[in-house]
Amino acid sequence: MTNQKAIQKERILVDPDKLREFASQVLRKLEVPRQDALMAADVLVYADLRGVETHGMSNNNLGRIYVKGIQNGSVNPKAEIKVIHETPVTALVDGNGGLGLAVGVRAMNIAIEKAQHSFIGMVAVRNSHHFGAAQYFSMMAVPYGMIGVSSTNSNPIVLPTGGKEPAYGTNPISVSAPSGNEPAYCLDIGTSAMVFQKLILTARLGKPIPFGVAADNEGQPTTDPAVAIQSRKLLPLGSTPELGSHKGYGLGILVDVLCGLLSGQGASIQIDSEVSFGSTGHFFAAMRVDAFRPLAEFQEQMDDMFQRIHRIPPAKGFDRVLVAGDLEHMNEQRRSKEGIPILPEVIEELRELAKEMEVPWGVT
Amino acid sequence: MTNQKAIQKERILVDPDKLREFASQVLRKLEVPRQDALMAADVLVYADLRGVETHGMSNNNLGRIYVKGIQNGSVNPKAEIKVIHETPVTALVDGNGGLGLAVGVRAMNIAIEKAQHSFIGMVAVRNSHHFGAAQYFSMMAVPYGMIGVSSTNSNPIVLPTGGKEPAYGTNPISVSAPSGNEPAYCLDIGTSAMVFQKLILTARLGKPIPFGVAADNEGQPTTDPAVAIQSRKLLPLGSTPELGSHKGYGLGILVDVLCGLLSGQGASIQIDSEVSFGSTGHFFAAMRVDAFRPLAEFQEQMDDMFQRIHRIPPAKGFDRVLVAGDLEHMNEQRRSKEGIPILPEVIEELRELAKEMEVPWGVT
Repeated sequence: MTNQKAIQKERILVDPDKLREFASQVLRKLEVPRQDALMAADVLVYADLRGVETHGMSNNNLGRIYVKGIQNGSVNPKAEIKVIHETPVTALVDGNGGLGLAVGVRAMNIAIEKAQHSFIGMVAVRNSHHFGAAQYFSMMAVPYGMIGVSSTNSNPIVLPTGGKEPAYGTNPISVSAPSGNEPAYCLDIGTSAMVFQKLILTARLGKPIPFGVAADNEGQPTTDPAVAIQSRKLLPLGSTPELGSHKGYGLGILVDVLCGLLSGQGASIQIDSEVSFGSTGHFFAAMRVDAFRPLAEFQEQMDDMFQRIHRIPPAKGFDRVLVAGDLEHMNEQRRSKEGIPILPEVIEELRELAKEMEVPWGVT
Repeated sequence: MTNQKAIQKERILVDPDKLREFASQVLRKLEVPRQDALMAADVLVYADLRGVETHGMSNNNLGRIYVKGIQNGSVNPKAEIKVIHETPVTALVDGNGGLGLAVGVRAMNIAIEKAQHSFIGMVAVRNSHHFGAAQYFSMMAVPYGMIGVSSTNSNPIVLPTGGKEPAYGTNPISVSAPSGNEPAYCLDIGTSAMVFQKLILTARLGKPIPFGVAADNEGQPTTDPAVAIQSRKLLPLGSTPELGSHKGYGLGILVDVLCGLLSGQGASIQIDSEVSFGSTGHFFAAMRVDAFRPLAEFQEQMDDMFQRIHRIPPAKGFDRVLVAGDLEHMNEQRRSKEGIPILPEVIEELRELAKEMEVPWGVT
């Protein structure tokens, strides 16, 4: 906790608009078209605003994942997505090997448009890449009075219950729904117990990792960070068979069915990174609440649900009971005003990136 | 393990057809119309066939839940469901206080019919009751080449992360999808780490319960079965904050959004059992695979995914890696031929029920 606080204090507060502008300029320099660059930058900075730091600029995902992907030829910067097949309520989209961040926004927009006309829209995407924070896309549906769903599969790194080798990726799923005065409900979860990035962070802080998040080479749970980082074998949400690991594992495969099988991309275990250059499948959905009941009534009942949960007395060590989306909303409110906290070493990395890309550094 | 095996040996194998006939006769005696009684009996016996014993005849849910519900006036045996609002792809259904088992079949049929005409069908249900094993309904979609979804909320019994009092019910969710030669993918999970029934069974066997499935009155995890049974406070899937309990908790609230909020029934925490007599909301969906891509290609890729996962080397203590639906399929195959294993004391309870209801006992 003291370590964490020390890190918090060190951080530099950065203007989100400047960060967004910088990210889009870097991407445009790599021949990403203006619209796609703006979309991608917005997805990235949104992750920082909402506190999903593993997926934002504060983790330098721009340099580490997206710039690198374009530079090594695995990501097509000038991709134009193509609708391969569609019905009034569904579409199958080929991402043309593009930047998942932009492909995701375009695909989710198709889902929302279909829902506007036909109440529900679902879009499966093949041939795309890492799309950032899943909640960006599900939250896109909320201002339209819709429930939004977004999901992606990825290279296998999570063990199935009873297995020694990974069966699926951290395969996140996000669902958002409109409230009235309360924050929007926003679920955004990986289907492993912990994401690999967080495991690396825990190891860096010199702490043992909790029993039930990672396994050794034999598939047995380990608390040794060195073993866990070497084996790269995460455990499913639910950790062990007696705590329900088959549930997290089953959810991970559900993500594969939606993102990999409906799209034709293939499940995590079918993704051959040599062939696909790490391309992945996504799934997006938008459902109009008023296809079921009046939106205002739904929102009022959502508010009441949030308020009842907030009134639950907190357990020892907790100040307050939160609902999915509360924390992200608080982060967004605060960081929009105060700025996004970024570690000095990441600021340095981003400055270097600015130099390398010959893009003006206007962030700090 | 020896205790468990002893129990296995004692069990009596029962013909599923006879069990189904018996269940439907009991329900008809309570003025449940013939079609509804047949539907309900089929849902019940399917749970036994698939090995979901907490939800079938082998747990005497017929007597303990459904007969009791009708007899105490909380369940309306002659309920006629009513479509309150609909679009080509959605419906809001009032269950008229009926038997969830039959309401569920009727509502899922509406979802499937809508999907046949419009590719997707979604149905939210209010004013219904305990619907049995969720997978019955999601699996109904599979023979039509559709992905099926089913879910229900229930009275709050699961703690939110950081809270002392329950925020939601065990709120299960089931998703099924067609394969080719392999069993259908079938996820059917509660969003708590363990269901209360299994906790009671563990306690009965005199074993301590695992750390991370139940809490004491202060919301702290307990391994003492007596404490857990008294407090009736389950922990979410993910068990503790460091293992991702907010993920299971968030999924539980997702079920409430779909089943409680879209339907207008109210979330688990809004269900006042004094007013509603324990009525609950459900959510059903059916999505045609061929709205995205040809069904045969999807099925072939599903088979390949299953086979790749089956080839993963098992960890110590496991014979084989299974996919969600494998175990249920094996149970169904075996039990359809050999019969459903039922404990002698449950057979006695069912015989008593036969006498009480003045229905012929033709099962053993």
